[in-house]
Amino acid sequence: MTPVAGSAPLFREHGTRACENGGATLRSPGLTVTDSVLHTFQVRTRSREELVDITSDVAALVSAHGGHGIATVFVPHTSAAVTINENADRDVQRDMLFWLKKLIPESGEFRHAEGNSDAHIKASLVGNSVTVPFVDGRMRLGTWQGIYFCEFDGPRARRAEVMLR
Amino acid sequence: MTPVAGSAPLFREHGTRACENGGATLRSPGLTVTDSVLHTFQVRTRSREELVDITSDVAALVSAHGGHGIATVFVPHTSAAVTINENADRDVQRDMLFWLKKLIPESGEFRHAEGNSDAHIKASLVGNSVTVPFVDGRMRLGTWQGIYFCEFDGPRARRAEVMLR
Amino acid sequence: MTPVAGSAPLFREHGTRACENGGATLRSPGLTVTDSVLHTFQVRTRSREELVDITSDVAALVSAHGGHGIATVFVPHTSAAVTINENADRDVQRDMLFWLKKLIPESGEFRHAEGNSDAHIKASLVGNSVTVPFVDGRMRLGTWQGIYFCEFDGPRARRAEVMLR
Repeated sequence: MTPVAGSAPLFREHGTRACENGGATLRSPGLTVTDSVLHTFQVRTRSREELVDITSDVAALVSAHGGHGIATVFVPHTSAAVTINENADRDVQRDMLFWLKKLIPESGEFRHAEGNSDAHIKASLVGNSVTVPFVDGRMRLGTWQGIYFCEFDGPRARRAEVMLR
Repeated sequence: MTPVAGSAPLFREHGTRACENGGATLRSPGLTVTDSVLHTFQVRTRSREELVDITSDVAALVSAHGGHGIATVFVPHTSAAVTINENADRDVQRDMLFWLKKLIPESGEFRHAEGNSDAHIKASLVGNSVTVPFVDGRMRLGTWQGIYFCEFDGPRARRAEVMLR
Repeated sequence: MTPVAGSAPLFREHGTRACENGGATLRSPGLTVTDSVLHTFQVRTRSREELVDITSDVAALVSAHGGHGIATVFVPHTSAAVTINENADRDVQRDMLFWLKKLIPESGEFRHAEGNSDAHIKASLVGNSVTVPFVDGRMRLGTWQGIYFCEFDGPRARRAEVMLR
């Protein structure tokens, strides 16, 4: 929760988000984020493939920032991604991981020797950023939309970055 | 065509776009959009799977706004998406829907009980926003590019949002 | 390397990037890009399917621009795309092209008569823009991330556009 850069906090690093439905909240008292340009927080994944709901983390940053603009959530990894999908029924998340695996199996015909080519391909198909308009400090997400960090080669300590413009 | 918010029109709701090659034009006289932050318009789809060309709607907003920046088209649904693809031959659109269905069939092995898991997965693969630079009030779309609202679980009354920054 | 527009260079066209690991560098002395709104450079591809690393081109523009913001790389074509993926092992790029071809074969069941429906579908799945935050003139790419122009129907003379906001 301490700024990475000192007096001019271009970056602000936030607490680890341990896992879905867990982890630190960013709504902690005293957290001011409006003076930062880029926010980064950690995501600790627990499985090889997993979707982690980071909606509330991003919403807290947008709320503290206020005003209007575009929230860009960026994942600086090549075997992970970020997407927006249904937040109501967890089976949707299971179905997505299941079908991505069906389309691009882990033990496919790959040349890349690290054994995670499937993860790289999934990352490019799903994409490593999402872009959400916000107005008056609230993202314009639909009723059923949540923002999900997509782990395709975990478990690992990962990072997500948020820029508000 | 009336603003959602009153004196300070942060939002402006535009007429329904009934379907491809139909629907209300946004170039109607008297429509001023430059003072709005976010534009939202409705898309009425007619089939379970359908691509609706919304290029002219977005272009009208960009033209009324003028100047330079980035147009973000955002779809606030989890079983619909938005993409940029060829606007010349309608067979391209048919081929895309056909192959998405081939990759992720409607009656696949899903756990989600609502019968639209395929739509959720397609939405995450295609993505729910597109980003287009504009200069002097004109989007930098290539000659053959059009912006398509992607319905994967219609027919429904849908919404698309546009923010210009 | 000469501006497209004269005294007020809204556009600036940069030299051709011939192919991966080749082509003109944009880091040439005297290149000033901070006064331009949109940058466009050419990408000459050599194969039907190919990934061309354009990271250094985009990084040079961001560096010359400086400051903080979002870099949008936009591809104005419907049978090409842009993605972020691993820059270390070229087998990752080969695996991605191989598996995209496996999912959507060139000679599939298509109605579009031009013989490049597979390319259009791949373009929509991979997407035709990427969005990268930058701080102090440096993109926030992860260690292993590179930006790749994705040719799906080459060889051709292509274009990529970059807007920094």
